[in-house]
Amino acid sequence: MKKLTHFDDHGKAIMVDVSKKDETLREATACGSIFMKPETFRLIIDKKISKGDVLGAARIAGIMGAKRTPDIIPLCHPLAITSVQVDFSPVRGKSRIDIRATVKIKGKTGAEMEAFTAVAVAALTIYDMCKAVDRGMTISDIHLKEKSGGKSGRFIWEGTTKPKK
Amino acid sequence: MKKLTHFDDHGKAIMVDVSKKDETLREATACGSIFMKPETFRLIIDKKISKGDVLGAARIAGIMGAKRTPDIIPLCHPLAITSVQVDFSPVRGKSRIDIRATVKIKGKTGAEMEAFTAVAVAALTIYDMCKAVDRGMTISDIHLKEKSGGKSGRFIWEGTTKPKK
Amino acid sequence: MKKLTHFDDHGKAIMVDVSKKDETLREATACGSIFMKPETFRLIIDKKISKGDVLGAARIAGIMGAKRTPDIIPLCHPLAITSVQVDFSPVRGKSRIDIRATVKIKGKTGAEMEAFTAVAVAALTIYDMCKAVDRGMTISDIHLKEKSGGKSGRFIWEGTTKPKK
Amino acid sequence: MKKLTHFDDHGKAIMVDVSKKDETLREATACGSIFMKPETFRLIIDKKISKGDVLGAARIAGIMGAKRTPDIIPLCHPLAITSVQVDFSPVRGKSRIDIRATVKIKGKTGAEMEAFTAVAVAALTIYDMCKAVDRGMTISDIHLKEKSGGKSGRFIWEGTTKPKK
Amino acid sequence: MKKLTHFDDHGKAIMVDVSKKDETLREATACGSIFMKPETFRLIIDKKISKGDVLGAARIAGIMGAKRTPDIIPLCHPLAITSVQVDFSPVRGKSRIDIRATVKIKGKTGAEMEAFTAVAVAALTIYDMCKAVDRGMTISDIHLKEKSGGKSGRFIWEGTTKPKK
Amino acid sequence: MKKLTHFDDHGKAIMVDVSKKDETLREATACGSIFMKPETFRLIIDKKISKGDVLGAARIAGIMGAKRTPDIIPLCHPLAITSVQVDFSPVRGKSRIDIRATVKIKGKTGAEMEAFTAVAVAALTIYDMCKAVDRGMTISDIHLKEKSGGKSGRFIWEGTTKPKK
Repeated sequence: MKKLTHFDDHGKAIMVDVSKKDETLREATACGSIFMKPETFRLIIDKKISKGDVLGAARIAGIMGAKRTPDIIPLCHPLAITSVQVDFSPVRGKSRIDIRATVKIKGKTGAEMEAFTAVAVAALTIYDMCKAVDRGMTISDIHLKEKSGGKSGRFIWEGTTKPKK
Repeated sequence: MKKLTHFDDHGKAIMVDVSKKDETLREATACGSIFMKPETFRLIIDKKISKGDVLGAARIAGIMGAKRTPDIIPLCHPLAITSVQVDFSPVRGKSRIDIRATVKIKGKTGAEMEAFTAVAVAALTIYDMCKAVDRGMTISDIHLKEKSGGKSGRFIWEGTTKPKK
Repeated sequence: MKKLTHFDDHGKAIMVDVSKKDETLREATACGSIFMKPETFRLIIDKKISKGDVLGAARIAGIMGAKRTPDIIPLCHPLAITSVQVDFSPVRGKSRIDIRATVKIKGKTGAEMEAFTAVAVAALTIYDMCKAVDRGMTISDIHLKEKSGGKSGRFIWEGTTKPKK
Repeated sequence: MKKLTHFDDHGKAIMVDVSKKDETLREATACGSIFMKPETFRLIIDKKISKGDVLGAARIAGIMGAKRTPDIIPLCHPLAITSVQVDFSPVRGKSRIDIRATVKIKGKTGAEMEAFTAVAVAALTIYDMCKAVDRGMTISDIHLKEKSGGKSGRFIWEGTTKPKK
Repeated sequence: MKKLTHFDDHGKAIMVDVSKKDETLREATACGSIFMKPETFRLIIDKKISKGDVLGAARIAGIMGAKRTPDIIPLCHPLAITSVQVDFSPVRGKSRIDIRATVKIKGKTGAEMEAFTAVAVAALTIYDMCKAVDRGMTISDIHLKEKSGGKSGRFIWEGTTKPKK
Repeated sequence: MKKLTHFDDHGKAIMVDVSKKDETLREATACGSIFMKPETFRLIIDKKISKGDVLGAARIAGIMGAKRTPDIIPLCHPLAITSVQVDFSPVRGKSRIDIRATVKIKGKTGAEMEAFTAVAVAALTIYDMCKAVDRGMTISDIHLKEKSGGKSGRFIWEGTTKPKK
């Protein structure tokens, strides 16, 4: 059975030693969705109604969140992020907004957690800005879409460990 | 149609003015789940195999994450948190770990975002610590379970805006 | 001659003891301006040209900056901010954007520094987002416009210590 | 007309992709001034009177502020700062203190924002420490004095976009 | 045997629930020392030789450190600090500098950790600023000197659990 | 007499300019101890009694603390940490827990302060988690055990500046 790399042989949590790994260009894309009532969806999408740019604020929050990753995820290495992009795709019939974050770094370890954190923070920000009208919104399906660079190579999500409900 | 409270009449983002609201005891509980491969689930649950306490680290991260909420969610008020509790319920047959965070404050506005952030950060930490063995883990169903205190009163989640897939 | 309150009798820097002051509602408004080339001004004001919302991002940054005040100003007390509002007034003929931030707290000491920091961070963000097209932008005239609440009472800026150039 | 680099073609805010830029030695110097009453100026300059080192504290704050730049400016890249220097030049006849910050990095993008932030935080700290005796102090003329390194080459401030009052 | 309050009945780490405790004025004083070579001691004490104010910088760092306590100590409550004071007593014959920090809050739980953190950060800053001339400096005897306020009442250190070497 | 490198020729605090130093692999180990009552020691060591993992939480805190070093130590350079390891050795007869942190970086300056901060934060966390049963615990003997890499070469602690009591 594989071993969890974040523990040493005595079960103690460690920040994995990447001192001798090469610095390469690495890229990771994470996705997620936030589900809501149709009225909430309309408020977000049609800025004429809401008179406010929820997604603009959530994008800024997601980008800033990516930079805070090593502050909030205990064993993450601090990384020199070279690019963050956060995109939203409203899915009209489903009252759902899909969130996608791509992070690039030149470094010794991957940017998956930065991409995940960007998605999570963007979703939390949407919830925060709309919670007064819709407390039942749900954040779901946050997963790694793709990553490249580094020794473990390319990963493309095939949904294998996704929940089957 | 209801209005988004985080924008003024000109559509500008604001931190909602709660200056004149009463300080009351408020409590919020958020839930979420992380889905994974059966092998990963066993590694997390059976510390004899993994030789490491993934959930212990994720709990600490979730509690600390709750405290960072106003730093990462743009329009959140800074709140004097008086209690944070983060619990994990492994669901054996489903290779799923359910996460539940309850936050209490004595303040002028609710603790929903703190509870959400605790769940999200705990889930991200589990992902981080296990990603070397299972990149396909998925974080889902983060939602507000219950809240009480404050003028808007009690809320209990009834799943209305949850995704139906 | 008046004494600087941030030092004790031996000249040592201290965080002023406000333990026994009353908690009252306090409000402070700070203003400032950023000057730029006419072309830059047009890019910011006319979102159709720039295809981006500089001021929206700067507003979010200013609000978040207000919350970081005790982290960056050494002797500031941590305060429970209850409201932040950041407004921009483009002054067309002068290629100047005026920035105004109002912060409210219920606390034992005033919110001036939070309002100042909001203005400064909003201005720095505008600079950052436009620096590729205009490195010569200048941030000026950051001052306290008004404050109320607390023992020292109301202050309204009369420009007395403003630079006369 | 030039384009704002912090937005993509759809007007969405992005952290500019610098992944493929070379790491070079870069340096930036920003300047600014704080204006005050003559009495305040004397209190700051003559430590025998004030019994406290306002500028020493402001210098520490400015250096620490430079390091917090990516935390507070939304689209700034995290940079490995290799040097920060903050200097103050009291201008006696004008009751003005000039602030100058020079930041060096070895990196893929410039250090202008770090230098600006150092100046702004140093100025805010001076205001904070003296506000009890002079609420009318004004922070002005924060601008980029000089920068070198990187593809855009050397910039020396010529005052073109400075306000003409 | 007494129980550790930071764990629930199942051994899970929690932020202790203080929601229903009264807000009272609380005060805590922590002390500690840093030991060094006589030459280093002289450099710090005699600013004419060192041409720099090590203790001034360490005092600012200690005060700021107190404010960061809930960010760095996992289960600490965020507290509204109302006063921080950091003092240094050079002990000439022993080449030792004693550090003492007093923190006051109006709150539901004590300020011990804030006082401890102020002492530790001040000591670390002295080490940092002098390490180029003396890598062997040692930080010792950080302990709670006194605390008052709150249900557990007054505590005065009697050295009982101090190491006897 | 040697000079303090953190001041310029005029006694002004600076972040030392390391722009032109080579990036090399650097490693630093700091140690420290926390002394307590025998009962407290047993509670920490025997998790069956305490029903909680004090040292697990302290280890996470120490690792995260290492990453916060440039935020809390004023003149520290931000460094790309590539490894952190925090170990505890309970010394049964002495009711003492020894703490040891090793930090590695690839960078232009050493990782001593990161190792020190990890030890200090781990010790403060142990104090925090046990203070309800033992307010008299003492943190002592935090010192640099060893460092390597960089121009100043290898350092091994020989206790010369340790306090002799």
